[in-house]
Amino acid sequence: MLVVMDKAATPEMIQRVRDEIDRMGFSAQTLADPHRLAIGITGYNGGGSVDRLETLEGVREIIRFGDQYTLASRATKQEDTIVDIDGVEIGGETFPVLAGPCSVESRDQAMAIAEIVAEEGVRIFRGGAFKPRTSPYSFQGLGIKGLEILREVREQFNLRIITEAMDTETIDLVAETADIVQIGSRNMQNYSLLKKAGKLNKPVLLKRGMSATVNEFLLAAEYILAGGNSRVILCERGLRMVANRTGNMLDLSSIIEIKRLSHLPIIADPSHASEQRYKVAPLSRAALAVGAHGLLVEVHNEPEKALSDGPQALPPNEFKQLMVELRRLSVALNKELP
Amino acid sequence: MLVVMDKAATPEMIQRVRDEIDRMGFSAQTLADPHRLAIGITGYNGGGSVDRLETLEGVREIIRFGDQYTLASRATKQEDTIVDIDGVEIGGETFPVLAGPCSVESRDQAMAIAEIVAEEGVRIFRGGAFKPRTSPYSFQGLGIKGLEILREVREQFNLRIITEAMDTETIDLVAETADIVQIGSRNMQNYSLLKKAGKLNKPVLLKRGMSATVNEFLLAAEYILAGGNSRVILCERGLRMVANRTGNMLDLSSIIEIKRLSHLPIIADPSHASEQRYKVAPLSRAALAVGAHGLLVEVHNEPEKALSDGPQALPPNEFKQLMVELRRLSVALNKELP
Amino acid sequence: MLVVMDKAATPEMIQRVRDEIDRMGFSAQTLADPHRLAIGITGYNGGGSVDRLETLEGVREIIRFGDQYTLASRATKQEDTIVDIDGVEIGGETFPVLAGPCSVESRDQAMAIAEIVAEEGVRIFRGGAFKPRTSPYSFQGLGIKGLEILREVREQFNLRIITEAMDTETIDLVAETADIVQIGSRNMQNYSLLKKAGKLNKPVLLKRGMSATVNEFLLAAEYILAGGNSRVILCERGLRMVANRTGNMLDLSSIIEIKRLSHLPIIADPSHASEQRYKVAPLSRAALAVGAHGLLVEVHNEPEKALSDGPQALPPNEFKQLMVELRRLSVALNKELP
Amino acid sequence: MLVVMDKAATPEMIQRVRDEIDRMGFSAQTLADPHRLAIGITGYNGGGSVDRLETLEGVREIIRFGDQYTLASRATKQEDTIVDIDGVEIGGETFPVLAGPCSVESRDQAMAIAEIVAEEGVRIFRGGAFKPRTSPYSFQGLGIKGLEILREVREQFNLRIITEAMDTETIDLVAETADIVQIGSRNMQNYSLLKKAGKLNKPVLLKRGMSATVNEFLLAAEYILAGGNSRVILCERGLRMVANRTGNMLDLSSIIEIKRLSHLPIIADPSHASEQRYKVAPLSRAALAVGAHGLLVEVHNEPEKALSDGPQALPPNEFKQLMVELRRLSVALNKELP
Repeated sequence: MLVVMDKAATPEMIQRVRDEIDRMGFSAQTLADPHRLAIGITGYNGGGSVDRLETLEGVREIIRFGDQYTLASRATKQEDTIVDIDGVEIGGETFPVLAGPCSVESRDQAMAIAEIVAEEGVRIFRGGAFKPRTSPYSFQGLGIKGLEILREVREQFNLRIITEAMDTETIDLVAETADIVQIGSRNMQNYSLLKKAGKLNKPVLLKRGMSATVNEFLLAAEYILAGGNSRVILCERGLRMVANRTGNMLDLSSIIEIKRLSHLPIIADPSHASEQRYKVAPLSRAALAVGAHGLLVEVHNEPEKALSDGPQALPPNEFKQLMVELRRLSVALNKELP
Repeated sequence: MLVVMDKAATPEMIQRVRDEIDRMGFSAQTLADPHRLAIGITGYNGGGSVDRLETLEGVREIIRFGDQYTLASRATKQEDTIVDIDGVEIGGETFPVLAGPCSVESRDQAMAIAEIVAEEGVRIFRGGAFKPRTSPYSFQGLGIKGLEILREVREQFNLRIITEAMDTETIDLVAETADIVQIGSRNMQNYSLLKKAGKLNKPVLLKRGMSATVNEFLLAAEYILAGGNSRVILCERGLRMVANRTGNMLDLSSIIEIKRLSHLPIIADPSHASEQRYKVAPLSRAALAVGAHGLLVEVHNEPEKALSDGPQALPPNEFKQLMVELRRLSVALNKELP
Repeated sequence: MLVVMDKAATPEMIQRVRDEIDRMGFSAQTLADPHRLAIGITGYNGGGSVDRLETLEGVREIIRFGDQYTLASRATKQEDTIVDIDGVEIGGETFPVLAGPCSVESRDQAMAIAEIVAEEGVRIFRGGAFKPRTSPYSFQGLGIKGLEILREVREQFNLRIITEAMDTETIDLVAETADIVQIGSRNMQNYSLLKKAGKLNKPVLLKRGMSATVNEFLLAAEYILAGGNSRVILCERGLRMVANRTGNMLDLSSIIEIKRLSHLPIIADPSHASEQRYKVAPLSRAALAVGAHGLLVEVHNEPEKALSDGPQALPPNEFKQLMVELRRLSVALNKELP
Repeated sequence: MLVVMDKAATPEMIQRVRDEIDRMGFSAQTLADPHRLAIGITGYNGGGSVDRLETLEGVREIIRFGDQYTLASRATKQEDTIVDIDGVEIGGETFPVLAGPCSVESRDQAMAIAEIVAEEGVRIFRGGAFKPRTSPYSFQGLGIKGLEILREVREQFNLRIITEAMDTETIDLVAETADIVQIGSRNMQNYSLLKKAGKLNKPVLLKRGMSATVNEFLLAAEYILAGGNSRVILCERGLRMVANRTGNMLDLSSIIEIKRLSHLPIIADPSHASEQRYKVAPLSRAALAVGAHGLLVEVHNEPEKALSDGPQALPPNEFKQLMVELRRLSVALNKELP
């Protein structure tokens, strides 16, 4: 921690900051240069009480250089975390593709899509039963009926299931069906939900919020880890952008950064980052090339009839083609598609 | 709705889009110019099914020009909504200042601050009992104990209470104490919580998400209105910025826009938009001048000891000074501070 | 300056950074806490050579806490700079309104608008002769003919003139006519132009870039000051936003911040920040209330015929009404409209 | 073009808009739905005069669905533009790597780096002689002396040269030396410079501005094309981000989009998008996988001594390793590294 003083701070103001740091039981060290004076704090343990230094006269800002997450940090655990989903590993050197529709719309639709993706070697099926929608008048998902269909998909095609939990009241219900419980972007800072996810006996996939920093993302993961659930998978899904009229922007750079800062696996969602289908395959290739631990892709047997996100869902032929490309690319990158 | 075609779209592709629109029961009209061809849709009623047009060959993008919210729209209700909080009006030409600490930290702290703000004419007291915090290791609020203290504040100082509900499990509990139930920025798209808020028999203050568009903000309000609760107060609290290293940016421009689009009252939170105390008073004056319906301000009797958000809380003397400035300014603006 | 080390940095890596700092002639101080180790540098004088520390093994990032501008800093000059434009002061406690059309379109148009604004007490006339336009096919300004018209406006109405210089080749020509030479947002980091502006014997108004940080903005001003021209006026004109589909967002918060960091006057441009006329008056009031040193407003006698920016220009009656509001507000704020 | 009306617009307001459109010689078509009424314009030719419709009463906004660029558009020219740099092609299915230091610092440095990159098969050498720097006190490049050194590099190693032009006064001088004249991000909307670049008899590489939209980027290219220079190469170099504290974010998604909208080649600059070296190789692989037409990479023989951008420059061993990876990957992608 560093307390940066105003240029106009008097020696008395500086001394008062030093005294306050001493009083808190930390050690103060002055860093001076012609441009600015700052006071470093040694022994700081991350507590919020140091915030109050910012209220002292003459203080310009406080700079924190330590991360506030611990369990999610690679400093705490050097080796990559590999989450085992009933025999399918996420993390390490594999590159699993999780695929399926945005929403489960009917038994027939789910079965048809499951068959398509299973044939391509997919082993984890995605499909929403509870859907967070921007408008209250949009299709909100089949709910419990959707979970039933997902259980049938699992049995018939030997696919593991990832599906979203939207609130503390239904997360346990979702976890009964799901092999991976997904927490969506809009709920990344729904701390009550994160705390409940920390108590689950199921892996959790946490999507990054639409304008969340890497630090906030890892702190959200820390909520789950701190609750006792160590099987957390991160998912980058695109940030809201300044300069793009449509769509989000897949922050592939953050995947590199997160792999350095954290031991947790991180996969990419090229579908939500695209909003338009023609971008999905190139972004999928890029995610593999940049080092992501897997993909979450939307596939639909009849995208033009989808009840949600049709424009970004891949039709069967394009999905097949994508899998061919990914397999060829993975060889050149020494990655394995399970 | 407007379906914009690719420049390279063939007549066959264009015809297929027209046929599809006909099939849906809407009417298609072609708009051609040397730069691009687009197909307008008449009779569109806002359903999601039109998304599928975006998957047809030759379609570049779909532009929606109608808003998707109805109950929140000024087209539905011309006159300003005024929410009555037990005799204090929010909306219309008044400018109430809602003030108090970020968190209720103790009985003594809450009472001391309540006395200070009540003396300045404040009639609605803010204070968090359940606190959403970025880090799981930060102070999370006093919870139920905090609600008890808030009830005592109400009785002793005749102050109405605004406090935050964080999840569907505790919102009813919070609503027993609160005169206004607050839904925070991080929960703006927590739709399960919004639906529950729609069933409350208490006014709800909804804060704008950190990167939410005006449309998303009004659609979140629509969730509450559609549930049957018409007493919704909006709150602009600053957006995450590209070009600022510290702090958010109070989007005063959106207050002007929202007053035009919606009949709902909208107040400003200059404290969270500042993150540093010296900005609070100027931003408060600006919010009054721009036409906001009120303020939500953080005040602390001992900011340097605050357990959360100390750097942005106003100490008593600065809050008194702010109220003097606001009263003088309100006269020049024909506004009334209750 | 602070060199933040990776958590996994070895003692050898840390020592190497310390050695390197010593070798550069600065002094290294270690700041350790359970989360991270950092090395503070004392005696740093702002040179770029310290960048190379970031390339050493084990270094995570370098944090600069000193500003890199000196002449623009309030630490260098405590009192507000007041720029005198032939008897009209910008800076301090006055609030001049600079008004006129976006572009000079014809002699008749310029004269008509000059008459309107002069009647309302405006003493500085704005109007572009050289226009930077996003499309090469848009109206590019009248050029030299526009400058001639502006000189006529000055003579006939005793108005001072502010007009834009777009490049190093024409800036001297523009400066012959202009009482204030404007440098636009798109040229904020056109350093060749800034250097030439530093050699002018005329005041310069520098607009903030569309996504420029406050630090970059003040460093751009520093280029002009370092060239020897101390008469620099800053202008906040709205930032490109994440969450707004249309328009920029006036960063009023930065005006507060800049007044604290720098002695230079800073005015607001509510017209470019609005892009729609109905927002101009409320944002103008807010700019006055927040403490800006003046306004730059677009006025047009026939906005519906304007060759550029018509939608945001105020027609005569709305401009008159705005001036009435500003005068009333300025009394409550102890400001003076010259 | 589409004129969207306010919900509260009266039939008279609507008629006035229709009349105005007729008067302009275009054709008006009404699109009505329960949410909103809009008026489509047919026959619109892109002129600015239609802006004035936005000033009419009852008009909410104007939506343009046609692009304003023509020469840069794939609708005008279907096949990919391939720019030949003295035998090295940029565009199409090749993937040239342009490499060298950020700045030319000395003859020895430039020669040493040229030798390194030439050995790896690089055929185009990058190196700045005129450097745009955020601070006036940073190293500004060797200027003319730098150009001399670059000519020596070309002769000795048979490397083509790409170097930046900063202003209209020196662009001709730069073009005498350069095989490709670079226009930097900060000058993307320096229209005087773009116009001069349009008159050059040399290829121009145009970098995207830090928060420029794809449309603005292509319109900037249109300025050069409209001047008569058809050899334009685009370069994506990272956007300023909301959620990242450090660095820009490489917008790989826009590369996909630009390849669809325009026939111009587009390469990626992973160095400026990284600001930290460890991200350069993964982003380079991702750029190749996403379909970019080449790379612009910073390499330095002694990064820890670089006068600018040392932290992001690759040292020789890492650059060699990157080239190995790219060659392997290019085979899997059917691309050819010249």
